[in-house]
Amino acid sequence: MARDERGVIDQSEDFAAWYNEVVFKAGLVDRGPAKGTMVIRPYGYRLWELLQSELDRRIKDTGHENAYFPLLIPESYLGREAEHVEGFSPELAVVTHAGGKKLEEPLVVRPTSETIIGEMMAKWISSYRDLPLLLNQWANVVRWELRPRMFLRTTEFLWQEGHTAHAGEGAARRETLLALELYHEVAREWAAIPVVPGEKTPGERFAGAVATYTIEGMMRDGRALQSGTSHYMGTNFASAFDIRYTAEDGREELCHTTSWGMSTRMIGGIVMTHGDDKGLVLPPRLAPYQVVIVPITRGGNAAVEDAAEDLARRLRTAGVRTHVDVRPQLTPGYKYNEWELRGVPVRLELGPRDLKAGTVMMVKRLGDDGKQAVPIDSLPEALPGVLDDFQDFLLARATAFRDSHTRTVDDWEKFADAVSTGWALALHCGSATCEEGIKSRTAATPRCVPRDSESEAGVCVRCGAASAYGKRVVFGRAY
Amino acid sequence: MARDERGVIDQSEDFAAWYNEVVFKAGLVDRGPAKGTMVIRPYGYRLWELLQSELDRRIKDTGHENAYFPLLIPESYLGREAEHVEGFSPELAVVTHAGGKKLEEPLVVRPTSETIIGEMMAKWISSYRDLPLLLNQWANVVRWELRPRMFLRTTEFLWQEGHTAHAGEGAARRETLLALELYHEVAREWAAIPVVPGEKTPGERFAGAVATYTIEGMMRDGRALQSGTSHYMGTNFASAFDIRYTAEDGREELCHTTSWGMSTRMIGGIVMTHGDDKGLVLPPRLAPYQVVIVPITRGGNAAVEDAAEDLARRLRTAGVRTHVDVRPQLTPGYKYNEWELRGVPVRLELGPRDLKAGTVMMVKRLGDDGKQAVPIDSLPEALPGVLDDFQDFLLARATAFRDSHTRTVDDWEKFADAVSTGWALALHCGSATCEEGIKSRTAATPRCVPRDSESEAGVCVRCGAASAYGKRVVFGRAY
Repeated sequence: MARDERGVIDQSEDFAAWYNEVVFKAGLVDRGPAKGTMVIRPYGYRLWELLQSELDRRIKDTGHENAYFPLLIPESYLGREAEHVEGFSPELAVVTHAGGKKLEEPLVVRPTSETIIGEMMAKWISSYRDLPLLLNQWANVVRWELRPRMFLRTTEFLWQEGHTAHAGEGAARRETLLALELYHEVAREWAAIPVVPGEKTPGERFAGAVATYTIEGMMRDGRALQSGTSHYMGTNFASAFDIRYTAEDGREELCHTTSWGMSTRMIGGIVMTHGDDKGLVLPPRLAPYQVVIVPITRGGNAAVEDAAEDLARRLRTAGVRTHVDVRPQLTPGYKYNEWELRGVPVRLELGPRDLKAGTVMMVKRLGDDGKQAVPIDSLPEALPGVLDDFQDFLLARATAFRDSHTRTVDDWEKFADAVSTGWALALHCGSATCEEGIKSRTAATPRCVPRDSESEAGVCVRCGAASAYGKRVVFGRAY
Repeated sequence: MARDERGVIDQSEDFAAWYNEVVFKAGLVDRGPAKGTMVIRPYGYRLWELLQSELDRRIKDTGHENAYFPLLIPESYLGREAEHVEGFSPELAVVTHAGGKKLEEPLVVRPTSETIIGEMMAKWISSYRDLPLLLNQWANVVRWELRPRMFLRTTEFLWQEGHTAHAGEGAARRETLLALELYHEVAREWAAIPVVPGEKTPGERFAGAVATYTIEGMMRDGRALQSGTSHYMGTNFASAFDIRYTAEDGREELCHTTSWGMSTRMIGGIVMTHGDDKGLVLPPRLAPYQVVIVPITRGGNAAVEDAAEDLARRLRTAGVRTHVDVRPQLTPGYKYNEWELRGVPVRLELGPRDLKAGTVMMVKRLGDDGKQAVPIDSLPEALPGVLDDFQDFLLARATAFRDSHTRTVDDWEKFADAVSTGWALALHCGSATCEEGIKSRTAATPRCVPRDSESEAGVCVRCGAASAYGKRVVFGRAY
């Protein structure tokens, strides 16, 4: 495709530039005036809403309740958990003045809410009967970014953060893994991203956590995107905020807490997992428009436009999100390119001759089976299946891509080669110094110790010491 | 009812204290650590979600799209519209430091988003074909409050803010009234608050607006609560942010813009419209639990508990939000009081004898028709109707209350008397000085010029000058 104002640079030429062009030109996002902030435009926000509603349903179905906690947190709260404050201090935005006066204590704009929710949990929990306390909030958070990238690293982003308190380690650890499984399911079944769920190595843990779990997706440039994390906090935050309960035997105990989050970063993950040189490719289950109908009217044809609207109504009744592009000032060809750029799974072209024949031309976003003439009356029944197949195809394609860019390696040369284009599955000694050495030489970091893989032991791919973790670690360069 | 830890003070004794006790004890809200902030607890947040989903559906059905704009706005933006900055400056929270450094330009935490959305609209709109631009966002906003009251005036609150741009005054004014009508419908049909829609007098307009419309509800202390507002901005913000379009005839024109918002304040409105000396009374359409089943098991009775769970399942299948209160450590009496305090519309008591008879005891929240034995098997079919009737009854009761506390008055003594217990419908001259005089003597302000009332003219109830507005004005003391 010629690269006009609607075209984008080829992925192979410059993946980062391709990403940036796509998210702006497809109308997902715009730049906000303050450094690193983004405006999520309607097309991008609808994608988020569709993802959000799936995740929210699962969060509720598993017994969590939504609540809302304040944006502004007294600065001193952050300091109560030593690792937490160290991790977040460099990224904080601080309100020093309000209501025309200097504040006695500055307030930080929440970078995450463990501290303020911990404070409230301490107030609400007194007995084992109050446990588990299963909370979630949908909110904006602010973390100052020096190298912002739309959706991936922005100064402000939207997310949900689950925060739970439990009587005992076992229950809290099960909760941590339950959240991970919700993320795995939503990423895989809805975003068609074949993420790898696993545990972070100690060096990659959340600030203040005892264990951090993650789902890692492989983008089409071979890099990893951390797409959701779930943390078991042990009693670290319970100690810092005095979250205690009286157990059934009357003794006072500290709660075990968890937190877990998935954010608008997922939108970037969808773009980079499925997109191609023509632009976005959206998984049907999250596409704001699953089908776009382009009536071909050459200066106005009421019969064709009416037929297009009528078909749209029937498709909507069948549960298909359908848009009719009636803009009179644009040519059909221009519209085809635009909807390809915007990643709509299925395009239906309807001209006077098609109408006469009782058919439409159906073109799937990847265009691999060309244009097909399809009877109009068959579409309300057939299209949901077409979309399901397309969804399945995207997941299968992304899985094949991930697998063909993941290599099991046991020597350093092959390791370095593998992480230059994808992931390496390698044994590692677990030493932080050795991890650092790998990072400085290859830019690769341990993404996770996968949950669903075989046990294995041997020697570290880098230093030759005995391997840790009991299995191979996924290494890759990351966003 | 004896006033124990779960009881609340009588409304007639101290309405403000009653309100404060109810919102905390019913578990709607808690105090945040920063001045004037609130934590919306799960029970309160669920109420908000139910309201939100109704309003969001209507916003989308009328062609608006959701988007998300940044929280942090360069301070200079506010200054571009003179009245706007004057209105909001005293309430701003300001971020002066971020990422460990002092910012070159301070950022304000949005008190409302006209400015930042105006800036983006200017970028997105070029031709008449881009209009109307119909945007909405669900967001948190911060306005520093010196006298915070939970839900009614808090430093941070949640709302939706619609922002639209149009080609011409007519279209923009129609949009302003459309939004008002959405608010009217949601308030009336879902919150059962018989609000009065109307236009604000010039002194009560939004900072920067040409016309402000409002829905005003009457609370059970006779005061008015402004429950949603819709503003026609003329070209004020379009001039300030250069929001222009090329018209069909090729000329460049300024857009006409609108904005409109409804917030978590509505929760306070629901509390104060329907609540009584026992606590909350929730309209069924917005009640997190429409029905609570209390099994009476006296130390455990599996048959009764199973029957309760079974009934709950059948009610949920019938679309009724049902909760079974199985807490073993509490007596049935304690639970009855608690669910009355929390405003659940219908309580079902199920004991061994009831189970044997195949009935439950049904008690409606207002308790006016006592306990009724109802066949268990009739409930899945009957309860939706019982809830509808209860919803209708609440609206009718609130309408009767409003009407009996609203007086049409033509002399000053009667005016002062009317606004001490409710609203006065009076003619007014429209002078700001005269308005001020009324306020300083009675604390009453003009709430709105109602849309649905007869034309009328005469002399001002206060100063005797010729009346303005072409009809009577609603005066009342307000929150």
